[in-house]
Amino acid sequence: MTLNNTIEIDIVKASSSKIASVDFENLTFGNIFTDHMLICDFKDGAWQKPIITPYEPFLIDPSAKVFHYGQAIFEGMKAYKDENDDVWLFRPDENFKRFNKSAKRMAMPEVPENIFMEGLKTVVDLDREWVKKGLGNTLYLRPFMIATGHGVIAQPSSEYRFMIILSPAKSYYSGEVKVIIAEHYSRAANGGIGAAKAAGNYSAQFYPTKLANEKGYQQIIWTDDATHTKLEEAGTMNVFIRINDTLYTAPTSERILDGVTRKSLIELAQRDGLNVEVRSVLVEELVNAAKDGSLKEIFGAGTAAVVSPIVAFAYQGTEYQLPKIENSFASQLKEDLTKIQYKLAEDTFGWTVKI
Amino acid sequence: MTLNNTIEIDIVKASSSKIASVDFENLTFGNIFTDHMLICDFKDGAWQKPIITPYEPFLIDPSAKVFHYGQAIFEGMKAYKDENDDVWLFRPDENFKRFNKSAKRMAMPEVPENIFMEGLKTVVDLDREWVKKGLGNTLYLRPFMIATGHGVIAQPSSEYRFMIILSPAKSYYSGEVKVIIAEHYSRAANGGIGAAKAAGNYSAQFYPTKLANEKGYQQIIWTDDATHTKLEEAGTMNVFIRINDTLYTAPTSERILDGVTRKSLIELAQRDGLNVEVRSVLVEELVNAAKDGSLKEIFGAGTAAVVSPIVAFAYQGTEYQLPKIENSFASQLKEDLTKIQYKLAEDTFGWTVKI
Repeated sequence: MTLNNTIEIDIVKASSSKIASVDFENLTFGNIFTDHMLICDFKDGAWQKPIITPYEPFLIDPSAKVFHYGQAIFEGMKAYKDENDDVWLFRPDENFKRFNKSAKRMAMPEVPENIFMEGLKTVVDLDREWVKKGLGNTLYLRPFMIATGHGVIAQPSSEYRFMIILSPAKSYYSGEVKVIIAEHYSRAANGGIGAAKAAGNYSAQFYPTKLANEKGYQQIIWTDDATHTKLEEAGTMNVFIRINDTLYTAPTSERILDGVTRKSLIELAQRDGLNVEVRSVLVEELVNAAKDGSLKEIFGAGTAAVVSPIVAFAYQGTEYQLPKIENSFASQLKEDLTKIQYKLAEDTFGWTVKI
Repeated sequence: MTLNNTIEIDIVKASSSKIASVDFENLTFGNIFTDHMLICDFKDGAWQKPIITPYEPFLIDPSAKVFHYGQAIFEGMKAYKDENDDVWLFRPDENFKRFNKSAKRMAMPEVPENIFMEGLKTVVDLDREWVKKGLGNTLYLRPFMIATGHGVIAQPSSEYRFMIILSPAKSYYSGEVKVIIAEHYSRAANGGIGAAKAAGNYSAQFYPTKLANEKGYQQIIWTDDATHTKLEEAGTMNVFIRINDTLYTAPTSERILDGVTRKSLIELAQRDGLNVEVRSVLVEELVNAAKDGSLKEIFGAGTAAVVSPIVAFAYQGTEYQLPKIENSFASQLKEDLTKIQYKLAEDTFGWTVKI
């Protein structure tokens, strides 16, 4: 990736680091943040000079539009450390492009590539000690943008804040993942914002997910809202389904997020000679395949979740177990992916970018 | 309304009032706030003591869940001043109930009635000079709740802030309102959060509304997302359609907000002996009625918009004008409603509550 022009970033370093107080072996996802953060404000129609400051709370007006109208988007990315202590990003250009796609759908200004990419690299580099070596250790990167303009009229804000915060992370899901197939609630409308990483898409899932949690399921696999017959995606990850030796995943649409892990797994599966079909799987197909034994695997794919095998799904009150299989596609693809991310295998795709 | 127990509220008064600097004749909606605001935090599983402080920015963590997952809800209400300088609320119990319905759908804690109602009355009373006499002058009240808990894991927050801010207001729409009927974009999914006053519902409409604005239309009348054949609601108001002498409005549903103004107008129309039918109107019906001259009126109804007559609608690239009529249902119902709100007519419904 080449940037047309580099940018100046003002840096105010933290007077001391919190790193010694962190137990990197026992991290809860997204709970602890590094010493620094990046801030870049949009006002008077233009992006201002980015600054890096110590991670800390900031002042905001009670009438800021993000509080009232949810004008907010984000990305999820990770940094990985290789055996030589080099730090790498994975396909950051994809996150950057999707961020601005989300911005457009939410009527927010696009963030210039140099602010996003140079900002990301600079703040990660400053906190590179927080990226720990070893498979499974990552620094989770959270670029996000919020509407900071004042006033409770329901209109796009004229002021915004773009920020990047960083959180050391291990896996998102610990333990087995069981899912419920959505029969009533929905994640996204046709012509809605399901394809955007818009804040409101996530809180909309909290209540149905809480109901699922109470029944012992970690996630919901969403279905189309009009008929609830087609499988779409889970709350924090895209979904892959293996029936016999074919791997299916839903096509991206206005309702489905164009996941970076999803598209990487499709390419890796194709490289490995696996049979991948990008098409909607019907709930009925899934249930029939579970009943006749042709359903071999379901797994989620996402930056936070990486590749998360699903051990059972429930539909209409019946729970269907997934078989325990050797040499699963999930484990093969997870290994393919993480070896590239940690620079343990050659990156023939050109996906990794050194900090 | 009786409250089981009154609550203590700590009050820190503003050292001086901003009121002298406000031009009450030239207000932009939702742009100026009064001297005070109410804050009540939820933490450790309980609502804390409410406080009233000067209106001012507050500190919040960059990882607060409201920024990342849009866990935020609000209400819109108004206070009115009568000729005796008494200040009145309109059906605040309806807003309170809907607020907690929204809270439940967004997996947020419900706000106790005494905090909501006593908080509202206390802060409005403190800033009662900001409620100006005269039809059309109001104080717009914005109770809202945001997720303030830290951490970027996609789960409901454990900490929240309930606030009430107040903004002097005249009408929401100045000038004529023209609308486009949605053909592609949608406001809400079946099984989604359309019936909640959730922040994310509003920013989701900004981009399609911007496209409509660019074509000269102020608002969109949303249609069902699956078929785009049924009329639902507009972005900031419910919609009433008069064909011949019958007034239609869509039934409330998971996709449609249960508007307080909407339900008040239905009751007023029934009292006045108008023929009101609560059912979905098809886009096709609307277009046919416009063509054969039986379409007499379309108007929006909402707290901010009050009753807003629509002068034209566009569908599939064709603009249809509404006729200019004497004695419109819109003006009759608006007069009925505002006379009750400003205590110029007897409130036989028991809708008004004195501060």
